[in-house]
Amino acid sequence: MLETRIRRPSLLDRITTPQQAAALIKDGMIIGMSGFTRAGDAKAVPIAMAERAKTDPFKITLITGASLGHDIDRMLTEAHVLSRRIPFQSDATLRAAINRGEVMFVDQHLSETVEHLRSNQLGPIDYAVIEAAAITEDGGIVPSTSIGNSASFAILAKKIIVEINLSQPAELEGLHDIYIPTKRPSRVPIPVVACDSRVGFPYVPIDPEKIAAIVVTDVKDSFSTVEPADVDTKAIASHLIHFLEQEVEKGRLDLTLQPLQAGIGTIANSVLTGLSDGPFHHLRMYSEVLQDSTFDLFDAGKLTFASGSSITLSAACAERVFGQFDKYKEKLVLRPQEISNHPEVIRRLGVIGINTALEVDIYGNVNSTHVNGTHMMNGIGGSGDFARNAYLSIFVTKSVAKGGKLSSVVPMVPHVDHTEHDVDIIVTENGLADLRELAPRERAGQIIANCAHPDFRDRLADYFQRASVRGGQTPHLLEEAFSWHERSRQTGTMRLG
Amino acid sequence: MLETRIRRPSLLDRITTPQQAAALIKDGMIIGMSGFTRAGDAKAVPIAMAERAKTDPFKITLITGASLGHDIDRMLTEAHVLSRRIPFQSDATLRAAINRGEVMFVDQHLSETVEHLRSNQLGPIDYAVIEAAAITEDGGIVPSTSIGNSASFAILAKKIIVEINLSQPAELEGLHDIYIPTKRPSRVPIPVVACDSRVGFPYVPIDPEKIAAIVVTDVKDSFSTVEPADVDTKAIASHLIHFLEQEVEKGRLDLTLQPLQAGIGTIANSVLTGLSDGPFHHLRMYSEVLQDSTFDLFDAGKLTFASGSSITLSAACAERVFGQFDKYKEKLVLRPQEISNHPEVIRRLGVIGINTALEVDIYGNVNSTHVNGTHMMNGIGGSGDFARNAYLSIFVTKSVAKGGKLSSVVPMVPHVDHTEHDVDIIVTENGLADLRELAPRERAGQIIANCAHPDFRDRLADYFQRASVRGGQTPHLLEEAFSWHERSRQTGTMRLG
Repeated sequence: MLETRIRRPSLLDRITTPQQAAALIKDGMIIGMSGFTRAGDAKAVPIAMAERAKTDPFKITLITGASLGHDIDRMLTEAHVLSRRIPFQSDATLRAAINRGEVMFVDQHLSETVEHLRSNQLGPIDYAVIEAAAITEDGGIVPSTSIGNSASFAILAKKIIVEINLSQPAELEGLHDIYIPTKRPSRVPIPVVACDSRVGFPYVPIDPEKIAAIVVTDVKDSFSTVEPADVDTKAIASHLIHFLEQEVEKGRLDLTLQPLQAGIGTIANSVLTGLSDGPFHHLRMYSEVLQDSTFDLFDAGKLTFASGSSITLSAACAERVFGQFDKYKEKLVLRPQEISNHPEVIRRLGVIGINTALEVDIYGNVNSTHVNGTHMMNGIGGSGDFARNAYLSIFVTKSVAKGGKLSSVVPMVPHVDHTEHDVDIIVTENGLADLRELAPRERAGQIIANCAHPDFRDRLADYFQRASVRGGQTPHLLEEAFSWHERSRQTGTMRLG
Repeated sequence: MLETRIRRPSLLDRITTPQQAAALIKDGMIIGMSGFTRAGDAKAVPIAMAERAKTDPFKITLITGASLGHDIDRMLTEAHVLSRRIPFQSDATLRAAINRGEVMFVDQHLSETVEHLRSNQLGPIDYAVIEAAAITEDGGIVPSTSIGNSASFAILAKKIIVEINLSQPAELEGLHDIYIPTKRPSRVPIPVVACDSRVGFPYVPIDPEKIAAIVVTDVKDSFSTVEPADVDTKAIASHLIHFLEQEVEKGRLDLTLQPLQAGIGTIANSVLTGLSDGPFHHLRMYSEVLQDSTFDLFDAGKLTFASGSSITLSAACAERVFGQFDKYKEKLVLRPQEISNHPEVIRRLGVIGINTALEVDIYGNVNSTHVNGTHMMNGIGGSGDFARNAYLSIFVTKSVAKGGKLSSVVPMVPHVDHTEHDVDIIVTENGLADLRELAPRERAGQIIANCAHPDFRDRLADYFQRASVRGGQTPHLLEEAFSWHERSRQTGTMRLG
């Protein structure tokens, strides 16, 4: 069995224990680890690192693709291993440490991290720790359920630790398309011209001598905790379907739409699934994470192809998909996140990007990351890569949070991740605001009337009206702009009285 | 003479007066006009439009490349012709009308406007009004000192009015490289792989039957009002040279650097000129507007090639350059602003982008556009296209404004054009903050210590320290974050006491 997973015999004697592999990691090192939205993360070595740190303290800079599963960020945080964390996370314990200022978190556009590594603005990577489905005869690494930044980590690292995960289906081999942009100044166009373009290798080509250790594991990916659609997400999907139907009527789109992207999380996932209720067909995805919705759309006969950087599924969906993976494999490709999220390709293909906002303001600026403007949730992820370059940049959110105490439409967002320039459409369960080619004052009218919750609508309209008296392209009352957030911080609610 | 400028004889009978051409424009039309940073704007028809509107009122949506010269935006505003203005302006009278809410101003990334037109999200263009140096035998339009959005305006418009400007040098022909991205879903990579790539036509290919009128003019472009370097801009340039030298020492750059971009305006222009004092050589530019600094660098023997979308010069520099244009022509190309500012090309080439901030906050978010967070100055222009996709995104500003009353480094910017993710380096006359791979709390330390004016430094440090006690990835005191701007609005100064 192991010989089919490690097909270069000379590497078999590098198999070791997680503890011995973890012992290679020294204080102050920069480590690049596989893992993107809980998929394809290294599962044994990081846990052994956390164990070791309990008696042998050390600190590292940890760079990943995106979020990790298996509570790895929690364990590394509790063991005080992390001094710096790049470019995304979604763990509650790590989040708290970040917000206490104990871990320096560099929140980065997901397409950009390996650009910084390649130009030596970040790095060098001391060890890449990469989960693989197999190692080829040439020593090439076949990733598992995600690529993320793994390919560049392995290529740029001084040394590599590979985790061969026997629980990952051998059929994953052939799924990946590893393309690395050529070096500047002779960089050529990225040849991806369609969702199903294959332009690279099915494995990461590396010098096998760089493989310092191989650890064999047999642990499944953490399942996603995506929640089922509810009445609000169904309403959001319904508004979006209606809007897209109108775009088809106006001749701007046909029923195959444009390649779709949906951000990580329950709302975007539910909305994408909801598109199967529309008249659309032969849909394609050019996204970063492929969630349950992708396979729901395949099974509904609506989707013809999906390109992503990871596959992150609920337990039930994982069983369905990996139990009959050959049914889907020909319609899938996984790419490095640099390519799945590349401005060049997203703009070329004309992607329809659907991302989740934490809150939006009356002019359409979006906060995706900072609770009350100060405390990090997860990170900007790929939302900026897509929103900036999309053919249509759509943000979805429920109009209230915390049982109705917080309005997701506010006078001014206290943290801006996406400026009004990068936000075309906002949808809540109440309705849809089409902001294209509107000036800020016009945008306010649309957002307040269509998206805000009725309980907060009058106060927003009143704020806008009083601000407009003072004039400006983007009217505000600065002394009052954050009063809703101040009330929320002090009393837990944005409601009056 | 005219036959060399209008080389298709059948078009000679379309020559008419500005008044007759202006009479073609009807109320409610969408007009696409040439003009980018005062260069290559139509100079007769828009003035005739403003005249006509005094007795025959009408309103239009006016889309340009960027800002116009010759007070055209002023005249059209005073004649109440503008209902909507896209995507950039820099006129004081129009600015005031925008801030009163009388003209709806859609402030757009300069690379994006024609994408919206091409996909029918904006438009259709009723008339394109385009200044040209010549019309070819085939009816192709040879632009003058800018391309901006003119090529797509002409291609997409129902009808075209051409202004043949005899004062524009005939030698401009051959300078332009008109490449239009192919239609989706079969769009192919933009083949620009170097600053000097030539990938298109030297004229705009159109159906000559669309030319409804030709007006002959003989009026020079408005000169730029760029101010000479002063002690502060020299200090900024000096800090930047020192930083770039260090990057060379670290092996991240060589002495030819990466292709350079500099935003419009005095500070960026002065800083770019200042680079001639460094050890750099064989520099290249991939920019939007080519200002005096470009030709200063050519004349200093430092620059080998410059790509832009317009040439905007002071009177003295214009005389020098256009008096001996053959000396420069082989080292220049003008492109549509969609290409000069395209994320795909900027990222591929690895541009070093130098743009001017109105103000920055302690975490490195940048306000480029809104005075006191509400009142529009000019617009975001191309700064976002470059800052997001640059190899190095540099923002420059003097540390104080209004004779020292306003700090350009503030606790929180009240309008965000560029988020901290897109800002690598901030330089003021006091010093340089290298923000790469730093978390927000670390960024604050750098910015306050290196960039803030000494008169405001302690108050910024105090704000940051008190905010940090409250915790968070990006600490703030929301109730106080805009207190500096509130003071400024009410008293004209951010200073205390």
